[in-house]
Amino acid sequence: MIVDKVLNKIQCRSFLSIKRLLVVMLVCGSISLAEAQQITSPNKNFSLTFSLKENGVPFYELTFKNKPVIKSSKLGLATRQGGSFLDGFTVTDVKTTSIDESWDPVLGEQKTIRNHYHELLVTLTQQAQQGRFMRIRFRLFDDGLGFRYEFPMQKGLSYFIVKDEVTEFNLAGNHKIFWIPGDYDTNEYPYTTSTIAEIPSLQKKATVPITAQQPIKAPSVQTPCMMKSADGLYINIHEAVLINYPAMDLEVDAATLKMKTHLVPDAVGNLAYMQTNAQTPWRTIVVSDKATDILASRLILNLNEPTKYKDVSWIKPVKYMGVWWEYFVAGKSNWAYSTVNNVKLTDNFAAFPPSGHHGATNENVKKYIDFASANGFDAVLVEGWNVGWEDWIGNWKEEVFDFVTPYPDFDVKMLREYAASKGIKIIMHHETSAAATNYERRLDRAFQFMVDNGYNAVKTGYVGDIIPRGEHHDGQWMVNHYIHVADRAADYKIMVNSHEAVRPTGLNRTYPNWIAQESARGTEFEAMAGLAPEHGTILPFTRLMGGPMDYTPGIFQTDLSYYGTGSKQRVNTTLVKQLAYYVTMYSPLQMAADMPENYARFPDAFQFIKDVAVDWDDTYVLEAEPGDYITIARKAKGKQEWYVGGITDENRRTATISFSFLPKGKSYIATIYADGTDASYDKKPQSYTIRKVLVSSSSVLKQVLASSGGVAVSIKEGTSGEIKGLKKL
Amino acid sequence: MIVDKVLNKIQCRSFLSIKRLLVVMLVCGSISLAEAQQITSPNKNFSLTFSLKENGVPFYELTFKNKPVIKSSKLGLATRQGGSFLDGFTVTDVKTTSIDESWDPVLGEQKTIRNHYHELLVTLTQQAQQGRFMRIRFRLFDDGLGFRYEFPMQKGLSYFIVKDEVTEFNLAGNHKIFWIPGDYDTNEYPYTTSTIAEIPSLQKKATVPITAQQPIKAPSVQTPCMMKSADGLYINIHEAVLINYPAMDLEVDAATLKMKTHLVPDAVGNLAYMQTNAQTPWRTIVVSDKATDILASRLILNLNEPTKYKDVSWIKPVKYMGVWWEYFVAGKSNWAYSTVNNVKLTDNFAAFPPSGHHGATNENVKKYIDFASANGFDAVLVEGWNVGWEDWIGNWKEEVFDFVTPYPDFDVKMLREYAASKGIKIIMHHETSAAATNYERRLDRAFQFMVDNGYNAVKTGYVGDIIPRGEHHDGQWMVNHYIHVADRAADYKIMVNSHEAVRPTGLNRTYPNWIAQESARGTEFEAMAGLAPEHGTILPFTRLMGGPMDYTPGIFQTDLSYYGTGSKQRVNTTLVKQLAYYVTMYSPLQMAADMPENYARFPDAFQFIKDVAVDWDDTYVLEAEPGDYITIARKAKGKQEWYVGGITDENRRTATISFSFLPKGKSYIATIYADGTDASYDKKPQSYTIRKVLVSSSSVLKQVLASSGGVAVSIKEGTSGEIKGLKKL
Repeated sequence: MIVDKVLNKIQCRSFLSIKRLLVVMLVCGSISLAEAQQITSPNKNFSLTFSLKENGVPFYELTFKNKPVIKSSKLGLATRQGGSFLDGFTVTDVKTTSIDESWDPVLGEQKTIRNHYHELLVTLTQQAQQGRFMRIRFRLFDDGLGFRYEFPMQKGLSYFIVKDEVTEFNLAGNHKIFWIPGDYDTNEYPYTTSTIAEIPSLQKKATVPITAQQPIKAPSVQTPCMMKSADGLYINIHEAVLINYPAMDLEVDAATLKMKTHLVPDAVGNLAYMQTNAQTPWRTIVVSDKATDILASRLILNLNEPTKYKDVSWIKPVKYMGVWWEYFVAGKSNWAYSTVNNVKLTDNFAAFPPSGHHGATNENVKKYIDFASANGFDAVLVEGWNVGWEDWIGNWKEEVFDFVTPYPDFDVKMLREYAASKGIKIIMHHETSAAATNYERRLDRAFQFMVDNGYNAVKTGYVGDIIPRGEHHDGQWMVNHYIHVADRAADYKIMVNSHEAVRPTGLNRTYPNWIAQESARGTEFEAMAGLAPEHGTILPFTRLMGGPMDYTPGIFQTDLSYYGTGSKQRVNTTLVKQLAYYVTMYSPLQMAADMPENYARFPDAFQFIKDVAVDWDDTYVLEAEPGDYITIARKAKGKQEWYVGGITDENRRTATISFSFLPKGKSYIATIYADGTDASYDKKPQSYTIRKVLVSSSSVLKQVLASSGGVAVSIKEGTSGEIKGLKKL
Repeated sequence: MIVDKVLNKIQCRSFLSIKRLLVVMLVCGSISLAEAQQITSPNKNFSLTFSLKENGVPFYELTFKNKPVIKSSKLGLATRQGGSFLDGFTVTDVKTTSIDESWDPVLGEQKTIRNHYHELLVTLTQQAQQGRFMRIRFRLFDDGLGFRYEFPMQKGLSYFIVKDEVTEFNLAGNHKIFWIPGDYDTNEYPYTTSTIAEIPSLQKKATVPITAQQPIKAPSVQTPCMMKSADGLYINIHEAVLINYPAMDLEVDAATLKMKTHLVPDAVGNLAYMQTNAQTPWRTIVVSDKATDILASRLILNLNEPTKYKDVSWIKPVKYMGVWWEYFVAGKSNWAYSTVNNVKLTDNFAAFPPSGHHGATNENVKKYIDFASANGFDAVLVEGWNVGWEDWIGNWKEEVFDFVTPYPDFDVKMLREYAASKGIKIIMHHETSAAATNYERRLDRAFQFMVDNGYNAVKTGYVGDIIPRGEHHDGQWMVNHYIHVADRAADYKIMVNSHEAVRPTGLNRTYPNWIAQESARGTEFEAMAGLAPEHGTILPFTRLMGGPMDYTPGIFQTDLSYYGTGSKQRVNTTLVKQLAYYVTMYSPLQMAADMPENYARFPDAFQFIKDVAVDWDDTYVLEAEPGDYITIARKAKGKQEWYVGGITDENRRTATISFSFLPKGKSYIATIYADGTDASYDKKPQSYTIRKVLVSSSSVLKQVLASSGGVAVSIKEGTSGEIKGLKKL
């Protein structure tokens, strides 16, 4: 259940007593309009200053504990027609507000989230433009800043086209930065770690080949980007509420250390079509001197709107397996039914000679259903079930899939009934081949087909160049498309897990059925170019700042030469690190991505995946350093169970896990899944130990993690019989 | 009922005896492959020669009665990737075929259409491109030529992108030409009459302002374009079966009198995305030394495919009125409910202050229903019924309309029941504001809403710049969109009348529920810039060559100053010419476009509109000269009734109507609606006479037509009582 305790628009002169309102602070705007405006965060760590400089150009700056985070930086938008929102402004109104409230997400990392900020709302008027005005709304939280541009309804301004957003982030030093290059179409680059000044020289190398990419020519990075200053400040820049606007990349000026907003253009070079009332997404800057605070930040979710869905009872966390990883590694199966290399939706696929390597066959799907059911999973994803895969990609073809016609060896009715009899849901797969137009025109039929056949979740895919041609994955039109799909899916009570979609910005609060996204380099790349050992320690500081990721962890057979396909590729983690990902890589939709036969080989380790929760009452970020290590503990939603995951990069390290998050005065059974002493990701990834001990809130575990290794701990209450004989940690 | 007697692929060595096959001629291809290929038309008037010239470049030429029509002209396509289909060809196969069959259109100008042609199919292989090949199929009829490019499935060629089609039409003289300028977005230009050589100097003047236009920079014309040579040959160039390809314009080289294909590009500058098996539309050249033969040609329909619809019983001709013309002239009503100038679909329109000038109110719609019902009409179109019209155009806005939400003063249920009680169908209106994406994503819901509320026909509109942005009204994507809408509508048994869509190419044969289109400058312009008196004598030679036009004739109150709105505009015809349009301007969907109160003022003239048929057993083009006059007689479908319409341009003339089309030996009652002797379109448009006479197959009427005047005749069997006292003509 979602319980939003929203306290809207508490302004000076109104002071309401609201139940569960923790603190109401009023910062009354008595400052002269002509001067700079300043607010501080509730904890006083942050200070935000807004001012108009020469020619009425708006600027802002941000400090944390009196250190500059963002030096004086320009604000504004240029428009295609008429005057721009760049200069000639006077401040004609200022409002300050304080909000302290809490709300419960439908699914999440914690049951209740506190939303506590001081707000500054500045009205900027262009007297020379017939009094046209915009507003800039700043919200200063204890963990950082969000601000956006607002364009209220007003005389003479209904529609305008954005041709540039000039928002700057003028950084205070040549920080270390974890980044992927700016691109209009893909978020699937590997991370580069460098200084800001090094970005231009590394841009080309960082831009590795990806199916469908459109790199920005100027030196640039995508958000969320994670930085660390020389004096230990952690700074994360991203955006929240990306609706009806293109995604933001950041152009990097290596000389001045200034970043400037670079929006994804549309087919004709425009950036955004706006109609008043309109607002941009929030630009977010999460800052702390502790890396763990960055991961604990809920600033982006807080800036999002509560869900409009009246009934959310059908939105459930999902642990699933799938006919998927075998397509990448095993060399035995494929999405396509036949080897014909030129097919059309109007073809009779049953007449094609089967390749003999089709993965989504009745028999194979039943095997997954059997295993998933026997091990307590919720669902099985099946990719390659529908006609069109023979030549689905690379031709900028619009009508690749119809989303309703199964291959001849996939019996929808039989499998629906078989899955239901085993308590398993089949997850629908809608690969669109990036032909969003084709998907939209068939969407109602596709969703009705799902409802008719008992599917309640869909994995969408957008591999390839977008149709409408000239549009990009991260432009305004596609941003609206993804939301349209999620919103329309809700009408059919369908959950959506989108792959190759624009990076998330906390919209899972408003559209909680948009349960997870890919939008980054996930496990599939382990079978191709590989992922660096540090990759998993960066993602939570970058991609996951925006929302849950369907990272698809759980690969037990990490050495892919095992399959005898000639692949020398390996998943660059130990087996235990794969377990730890279930805790460090938050998602209410989690896959056990390996094949049943591999899990059957390691039933004791598999037990952790069977046990681990995917929805949480609370989260404790115990240790973290981007690029190096992360250790997180979480309490399972509605249960007296806790799960801990710790991961490290290529360096062995000792994780320190304090169990102080446990209720005091009671002992629990901790099952510790650890790398073997001889384990390492590249030599002995499958060396692990499992031990059971008693822990209490005063326990501390010092656990050695192998090179690219991990630790996973499940903590449960035990009966006296179970506890008996167990040693204390 | 459609009865297609298709005789497929009669080739040399096969000679089938088929019932109703009138003549089978076999022209066996015994000519050496290295030489030119030649076929003649069944009547031997035409000769088509295909040859390869230097570097293996394909050429064709066409003669009529030994006169050159198209001099040696280049063929071929350039592609985006890899080798083009331009040169390096050798002829590797030649097939000739003869077909003579007949078929019955669902709705049409005649009950049965003869399809009689000689075919030459040339296979052209590029040995240097790994044996890649294409085919060119020529079909030579007694009324002209059709040819197209075909790309069969073959090794190494599945997908390609067209970047140019070089098809040339090398004309034999500096013909007189009736043309509108080339444009990617509109067909609504007024016609210019000039010589071919004059086109470049007239291009700018011809390109008048239109909402949403993208004129081609090079001197160019649209098709169908109508030409007349100095020695009296009438030549019409157009295309047939425009599916999955952009529309063709023609670049004009005034010096050489050569026209070259110019295709409408997409958002990224590509022209067409092709997948083998693929073919281009047919390029058509209809030729005769009699202008009447051009109008009688069914060549374009013959080149189209039979309908795939199994059940066509729900496709019916429609005579309708509509809440429409009053929006243009009467100054009293509007599409929009309120005067708010910034609305969104999410707004509560009922909360807006009504303007008091909304046209689609319950009361007004009932008035139209009452009148339409009392006068035997089938349907009433209602525009402005749904929310969104307040600021619907000019903002390149995507979500303008939802197609299911009525304004607060339009009661869908009440009007559905009221209309049903009066035997009237309400015609749905789907103005899309050119946001095709928004329409497609809502299409299933919009059509279901229609079915739920008893609508069986929709008028679609595409005013504005297209979304997907960068696409054009006449590009491949939109071409496919219109067909998709028609095809999907058929699933709901809905007929479609599209406005601002690409010009038709005979697809009403294949999609008979795509009952009519606008796609030209129609009556609405009489209320704006006006239409030249000759306009109606050109349209059947140009726009209507492709298919039926929803011209919306029937304006009785032609002097628009009548409404006291300050307009000095007038409809540039006499009242009688408006009657004649029901015969000269073919459409199985015909509107009586004026308001009920105007028809009530002229009940005797209105009788012709009430009587006239809209679907026909046969058509007789009695007289015609493009730009000057047209006289056509037609026999009503399944009835012993005939209707004659004659029109003239600004010049008075005497039409000669021979009634030889009537069955011999019987007298019929002819009601002759004629311009008054003092009538003229600009001074006395409402002066008319009506007289009844007896006619037989030997009768000839010499009737004077006023300046921009007309004549209309209805011919029926009469009882002896009715006949008694009537004079013979």
